[in-house]
Amino acid sequence: MAGQFSKEDIIFMREALSLAEKAQQFDEVPVGAIVVSEGRVIGRGFNQREMAQNALLHAEMIALDEACKNAGSWRLSDATIYVTLEPCPMCAGAMVLARVGRLVYAADDPRSGAAGSVMDICRHQKLNHRLDVISGLLADQSAVLLKNFFSNKRNKNNLLTNKKSGI
Amino acid sequence: MAGQFSKEDIIFMREALSLAEKAQQFDEVPVGAIVVSEGRVIGRGFNQREMAQNALLHAEMIALDEACKNAGSWRLSDATIYVTLEPCPMCAGAMVLARVGRLVYAADDPRSGAAGSVMDICRHQKLNHRLDVISGLLADQSAVLLKNFFSNKRNKNNLLTNKKSGI
Repeated sequence: MAGQFSKEDIIFMREALSLAEKAQQFDEVPVGAIVVSEGRVIGRGFNQREMAQNALLHAEMIALDEACKNAGSWRLSDATIYVTLEPCPMCAGAMVLARVGRLVYAADDPRSGAAGSVMDICRHQKLNHRLDVISGLLADQSAVLLKNFFSNKRNKNNLLTNKKSGI
Repeated sequence: MAGQFSKEDIIFMREALSLAEKAQQFDEVPVGAIVVSEGRVIGRGFNQREMAQNALLHAEMIALDEACKNAGSWRLSDATIYVTLEPCPMCAGAMVLARVGRLVYAADDPRSGAAGSVMDICRHQKLNHRLDVISGLLADQSAVLLKNFFSNKRNKNNLLTNKKSGI
């Protein structure tokens, strides 16, 4: 899979991973995204659902919103979006609407991935735009970050349950 | 189909239609949405893609964003969303993420509808939430609004083409 990715892809995915780590610092599911156009980052985002109590604030949506503002256009045809986790239906749908040219994501999401795992909105034959999609770049780093996050969450919850039951 | 709808449904869909008309006044594709919880409107939106040059600003997203802010929660489980057009994949995905209880929409969208027409994200078996979906309420009014909007657009474009070619 490595041959599909350029040096720039690796640099930008590393930046997306550092945004995912930032999400984790705020106790959010660690997902990060950046939008790049002509070699320049025009949008950055990390998951902020819990802190903002807003279901729409996935990393990709924040990055796409900033990218549209910076580009002064809803069309991001020459942009690439880098995400540390396969996008959900909302985020994949947003990428199609913004006519994003290319999606590079790290880890697959077998539970709600909409770039091939559960459904494929990014390359849907009936929609009016299709992205080039490649995946697997720094996937292990992203998967470890997510695994540790959920494992810590479970441990914290168990601790709380034990405290409540007086153990 | 009318038996499925309550008096409140008709009142709220009329309000969504008036938001769609507001979109049209700004030369936007006329789509309106409102979110209702416990009989109270907690979110309103109309399509603003062109004026904001932002691909994410569909009527539903604006209404859901406002609803999360008003509810102080990303969970809108007891809410109903009223939309004048079948939601696209992004908006349907957002409804699933916000755990919206019920979707009532007016006209079908055979080109990109994600509540049954092109795909069904709202009732997808593999996603972790499913909405109750009913459609067809004031569908004719919404369809006429959309038809007139696109017909006027075409006429304007033809006029411009004719002017350019000196007709």
